Amino acid sequence: MTTDTTANSSAPDYNEVAVQLHRKFGGKMATTLKHDGEVTRHELSAYYTPGVGHISSLVADDPSRLREFTWTNNLVAVISDGSAVLGLGDIGPAGAMPVMEGKALLFKHFAGLDSVPIVLDCDSTEEIIETIQRIALSFGAINLEDFAAPQCFEIEDTLIDTLPIPVFHDDQHGTAIVVLAALINACKIVDKDMNDMRMVIAGIGAAGTATAKLIKEYAPGASIIGTGRGGALSLEDLSLNAAKQALLKDEILIDAPNMSLADAMVGADVVIGLSAPGIITPDMVASMAKDPIVMALSNPIPEIYPDDALVAGAAVVCTGRSDFPNQVNNALAFPGIFRGALDNNVAKITTEHKLAAAKALANFVDQPNPDKVIPSIFEEGLSDAVAKVIT
Amino acid sequence: MTTDTTANSSAPDYNEVAVQLHRKFGGKMATTLKHDGEVTRHELSAYYTPGVGHISSLVADDPSRLREFTWTNNLVAVISDGSAVLGLGDIGPAGAMPVMEGKALLFKHFAGLDSVPIVLDCDSTEEIIETIQRIALSFGAINLEDFAAPQCFEIEDTLIDTLPIPVFHDDQHGTAIVVLAALINACKIVDKDMNDMRMVIAGIGAAGTATAKLIKEYAPGASIIGTGRGGALSLEDLSLNAAKQALLKDEILIDAPNMSLADAMVGADVVIGLSAPGIITPDMVASMAKDPIVMALSNPIPEIYPDDALVAGAAVVCTGRSDFPNQVNNALAFPGIFRGALDNNVAKITTEHKLAAAKALANFVDQPNPDKVIPSIFEEGLSDAVAKVIT
Repeated sequence: MTTDTTANSSAPDYNEVAVQLHRKFGGKMATTLKHDGEVTRHELSAYYTPGVGHISSLVADDPSRLREFTWTNNLVAVISDGSAVLGLGDIGPAGAMPVMEGKALLFKHFAGLDSVPIVLDCDSTEEIIETIQRIALSFGAINLEDFAAPQCFEIEDTLIDTLPIPVFHDDQHGTAIVVLAALINACKIVDKDMNDMRMVIAGIGAAGTATAKLIKEYAPGASIIGTGRGGALSLEDLSLNAAKQALLKDEILIDAPNMSLADAMVGADVVIGLSAPGIITPDMVASMAKDPIVMALSNPIPEIYPDDALVAGAAVVCTGRSDFPNQVNNALAFPGIFRGALDNNVAKITTEHKLAAAKALANFVDQPNPDKVIPSIFEEGLSDAVAKVIT
Repeated sequence: MTTDTTANSSAPDYNEVAVQLHRKFGGKMATTLKHDGEVTRHELSAYYTPGVGHISSLVADDPSRLREFTWTNNLVAVISDGSAVLGLGDIGPAGAMPVMEGKALLFKHFAGLDSVPIVLDCDSTEEIIETIQRIALSFGAINLEDFAAPQCFEIEDTLIDTLPIPVFHDDQHGTAIVVLAALINACKIVDKDMNDMRMVIAGIGAAGTATAKLIKEYAPGASIIGTGRGGALSLEDLSLNAAKQALLKDEILIDAPNMSLADAMVGADVVIGLSAPGIITPDMVASMAKDPIVMALSNPIPEIYPDDALVAGAAVVCTGRSDFPNQVNNALAFPGIFRGALDNNVAKITTEHKLAAAKALANFVDQPNPDKVIPSIFEEGLSDAVAKVIT
């Protein structure tokens, strides 16, 4: 496995480029007319009054025709409260706006989807839920983004139950789908069955929770220990929140009292880091089972750098970065998920959809090898390959 | 004055064209990237992670920089609850969506402004207000549209008081500005001073209320009687809502007990119809003062057709239609109002702004004549002329 070890030191100063580009254009997105060419006065009278009155009557009589006559057929809202933005944490809705507009850019760039960033200035989970419910008719689908755990679970579950359009918290499920895709191919390389594997997920937040659940759906026999800042999760820890307790009670995670991350990794086949820079040492990797799979997804600084993991014996290493092989990037999944949901009139994105998307991503790699267990986000046809299994 | 009296009978079937165009493109609007040309991988890393994190930090530290780095600098939300949509009434948020998307199209077409249609599924005025407050950070300005009176007054007033961005209920103020502009020029033609004039406003809803108020700001000496379905407004009518009572108590309108529309029009210099088709008869126009000004703005069927009004003695006739001279169209005002507010960092659109916009529109007509008291919405430079007085 070759990694460009100079990439980190020679990485361009993205901060400066980001400031330049964001200032140059005044943000990233704009609206435009779908109409080809100049709109005549006659056409204007059909797009607006008096013609639009007829369209409104048709939709009022049958709201299911919203998608026939309005841009909602191709429109995803990217919604955040700013409570868990990238690695920045709870920076609030204004600070979240540039990221949400960036996500809207990705939707357009990778899947041709129109997308509107919406940030919420809310004081409670209830306010978040009711606000999204009240504006939901304006959109074809909702991408929840950067909501903190554990509130994100209630928000997503309630919206899925109550809204007639797809709602998908990408930090949870986008990550889970791409991790599972990478694992499927990594298992081929190390010739192990995921059902027999022991895994450690370091960091049981939104992404870690969804990842554990999706892996157990794919491979019910997998044994997963989850760890947090206080070590492995256990019901003996009375400070555990209800969402984490449920993972243990529902046997998604193994109850592992009095165990550190290092303890948990001894003999493990897989470690999935969704936590903090540098917390995995070469010694920990060396203590794992034969041909361990190391996914160090903390971004931009991984839990362990690929070279260190490889030297310590890792068979496959993934990171969240584009300058190393095997970038686990949500953009592999969400454009196709939403493209498919809208194209195929899917009202809810189910566990089956997520499993199908992970398999589609895994199958998109012709010949998996240690440097390529998942596609690059720039490969042609990727979002279409995912979209077509969301039916 | 020449009017194309065949226009009505030969008008194209806008309903059919509207269905065709809305279906052909699947709605009217789309999002697009501001970036020129292909986005490189390097640029993608500046627009999204890792570069965007720096932008988010800058905005979180100083939310006033939202406009520097996000599309909010050029973005207007068009928001409705669907309670008073065009001539269709309370058809609800789904039915309102095609109109709001149409308004977003007009913002782009006439002023180059990006615009997002948002429809609200709310059960009370309080819910509407709090929902808009919670999403307002996502936008640079808010155009309230098709909210029913009297709730629209509380909604707009509260949002103007509590939000740091421009909030403008176009049904009220867009109409008021354009009516005043037309009146200013019509007064030149009939050589009367608005301060000495008697006026009747038929229909005291959102638009009628704002029109009466703006005329009184421009010409405090004007005497205005407002009429509704039950005749002229009077405090003797105990069923009058608080908003209408306030117009009488504040002496915006004259208290006129036991008076019909026909009674009120006797000797009046101006009648402004913002009500229902055909309610003004030629006899009523004939009963007005010398050189009466008739604004029959019900759309598409006016309170009286121009030819009938002219035969009955009207000196100037305006309608809401594009196929007669003097079309009173909100699109004369709102694109420039919002263009100016965003370009000039105006946080609140004041009465002075509205008066300045009306004067700018009036002045845009070089030589007012009975067939041209206001510009056409298609004249070059119109939105810029309005924008530059919103400072």
